[in-house]
Amino acid sequence: MKAVGIVVEYNPFHNGHFFQAEQARKLTGADVVIAVISGTFLQRGEPAIVSKWYRAQMALTCGVDLVIELPYLYSTQKAELFANGAISLLANMKVDFINFGSESGNINDFKQLHTFMQNHQAAFDQLVKSKMKLGLSYPRATAEAFNQLEPDSSILALTEPNNILGFHYVKSIADLGYNIKATTTLRKQAQYHDKDVTEENIASATSIRQAIANGQLSQIKHVMPKTSYQLIRDYKNAYSLLHTWEHYYHLLQYKILSTPSEQLRLIYECEEGLEYRMIQAGKHSTSFEEWMQQMKTKRYTWTRLQRLATHVLTNTTKAEMKNVLSSSPTYIRLLGMNKKGQAYLNYTKKQRTLPLITKPAKVEGPIASMEERVTNVYLSPLAPEQRTKQIKEEITRPPILIQ
Amino acid sequence: MKAVGIVVEYNPFHNGHFFQAEQARKLTGADVVIAVISGTFLQRGEPAIVSKWYRAQMALTCGVDLVIELPYLYSTQKAELFANGAISLLANMKVDFINFGSESGNINDFKQLHTFMQNHQAAFDQLVKSKMKLGLSYPRATAEAFNQLEPDSSILALTEPNNILGFHYVKSIADLGYNIKATTTLRKQAQYHDKDVTEENIASATSIRQAIANGQLSQIKHVMPKTSYQLIRDYKNAYSLLHTWEHYYHLLQYKILSTPSEQLRLIYECEEGLEYRMIQAGKHSTSFEEWMQQMKTKRYTWTRLQRLATHVLTNTTKAEMKNVLSSSPTYIRLLGMNKKGQAYLNYTKKQRTLPLITKPAKVEGPIASMEERVTNVYLSPLAPEQRTKQIKEEITRPPILIQ
Repeated sequence: MKAVGIVVEYNPFHNGHFFQAEQARKLTGADVVIAVISGTFLQRGEPAIVSKWYRAQMALTCGVDLVIELPYLYSTQKAELFANGAISLLANMKVDFINFGSESGNINDFKQLHTFMQNHQAAFDQLVKSKMKLGLSYPRATAEAFNQLEPDSSILALTEPNNILGFHYVKSIADLGYNIKATTTLRKQAQYHDKDVTEENIASATSIRQAIANGQLSQIKHVMPKTSYQLIRDYKNAYSLLHTWEHYYHLLQYKILSTPSEQLRLIYECEEGLEYRMIQAGKHSTSFEEWMQQMKTKRYTWTRLQRLATHVLTNTTKAEMKNVLSSSPTYIRLLGMNKKGQAYLNYTKKQRTLPLITKPAKVEGPIASMEERVTNVYLSPLAPEQRTKQIKEEITRPPILIQ
Repeated sequence: MKAVGIVVEYNPFHNGHFFQAEQARKLTGADVVIAVISGTFLQRGEPAIVSKWYRAQMALTCGVDLVIELPYLYSTQKAELFANGAISLLANMKVDFINFGSESGNINDFKQLHTFMQNHQAAFDQLVKSKMKLGLSYPRATAEAFNQLEPDSSILALTEPNNILGFHYVKSIADLGYNIKATTTLRKQAQYHDKDVTEENIASATSIRQAIANGQLSQIKHVMPKTSYQLIRDYKNAYSLLHTWEHYYHLLQYKILSTPSEQLRLIYECEEGLEYRMIQAGKHSTSFEEWMQQMKTKRYTWTRLQRLATHVLTNTTKAEMKNVLSSSPTYIRLLGMNKKGQAYLNYTKKQRTLPLITKPAKVEGPIASMEERVTNVYLSPLAPEQRTKQIKEEITRPPILIQ
């Protein structure tokens, strides 16, 4: 059996994702599609709008055979660490291929870019560093550094978000020495940040979340698979909310205003006096949106600041992150599978080295502790009875099995 | 001008308090009644039902001439530290007398008890220690230790809560060497813990809070001065709540479940593995009442556990508390006064050594930081706009001045 891995957030699962899973299978001829999916908080530093279970269910009913969880220590990181974590989990699942959506759509672009960067890594790092010292944000610094290296025009530029992620997948596979073949699919949709839901059948996740935030669920019905749309409605009916940062702002504000600056400074990604900025913004802001507007500077991207907010909310310190990142993953959490996924698990049983966890109540260690804590924070906006019920179920429920 | 000091919480101000202020003035012949009032969180480890400003206003319209704040570092402590803090602030206000309500009503009882305890302090301390080792709560250990010392029957027993507080006021004055004359008034009311509001005009604060928690404001109208009753109604109309622990439980639960046990252990009054108990209870409880029921043991009183919960909520560590308690008060915060109180301030201006703070935005240092943090936590349950407004006003508003 051959497997192709995809790295996804499914926030929520839409037609673009359906298309990608289908393409991944076709393009590689794989028997099985394995998705590694962010669990609670996402790469842009946001809570997932519905729980990992609902998103795993969406995937399993829409062309994915097996879903594993990308834990918090990787899911809330910039592209490089995010890619390293996802690729190492997929490698442990013994995938033969990975597939990613990109603005380029041509895998040779990424190979060429990787070779070019290998030859210029030291100069590139130096340039990024000096540009950040001038006050540029990390993404701008990398883009400008890249331009300054003067690659010829055939080299893919490091500017589009999915191209950047794709580059890091290819780089991770090479750096970590895995025998995985990377493939890419042209993204069939509007630009990532496009905010309007189009009349076509594929829309960006950002525009879909915008429509959801505005309470206009019906607007997105045509850009999502039926089951995915129904699962979002089900979640909202069951829990009376779809998670957004605003549901957490009173907790974030409480956390910031109850934490002395010297303790806030210990939080991961809290650099250069951001603790004082957070406190000032916390005193004066009545919503997360307002807080973020007050936090904004040229120096940091919105995403970077949202990730900081996430780490503050989840009480994730530099020391803890350093500790969990210093070792390889110690287990893989299985969220769900269909019969084919199950067959694949049996097929690869002897080759896989990491334990596959089905009930994390039995897992110990720093990564498991972090996951439990972060999940409990994620569940905070639920009503009291639902919250305590989910806190318990989260560590005891078995994976989803689709017939 | 002569002044009498009283130590109060006014949670809320009721007829018993009115009676005490009046008696304090009559009994001592003082010109001025000065109340030192707990600001945010109280000795039983609870949030004040209305803000310090509303409670100061109640006092000033009901016979008190000057109101200063008892800061958090003293207001949430067991009797000894609570009394030490309150007495030292009153001493700095140059009061000639203090007056306290007691179950005894006879000041000689307290003087006699104090002399007796001075002669038996070492033996008493030893007995308390050994009884606590056997698993008794602190109040039970002190009561049993006291009995075991076999005082003759004329010595006041250390059992009734207001007698215990009174003893500590008398002891503080002696220990700290202040020239203050202690007086006491027989408490004209039901036992402190009585939960039923009686038909008479004086009821216990506990029964009043119970009626408030049940939303039965009209039931308590006859046991409170008109202005006090009106101020409670005003607060509820303005902020849509009267603060109870239940308004903070989601924050407490979030705090407990987002804090690793080794960090929880650093919280003041977190002893002997209580951190694990808090986490377990936090996972399973949907309300503060339920959480407390799960926390309860013979070893600790309800009050002791509520104080622990308060310190967790306010993120007050052992190290911080040790630091602020190790020095004398560095300032006194003035909450309000009438003309007579103002005249007294002028009269004692040259004798008073601590700065009298009217706008704490200008105060620095560990006690001021603690106060600001704790107050921000206290304000958390308010609606977003009101919360940020109050956070700002709290450190900028001048004292109340009643004409």
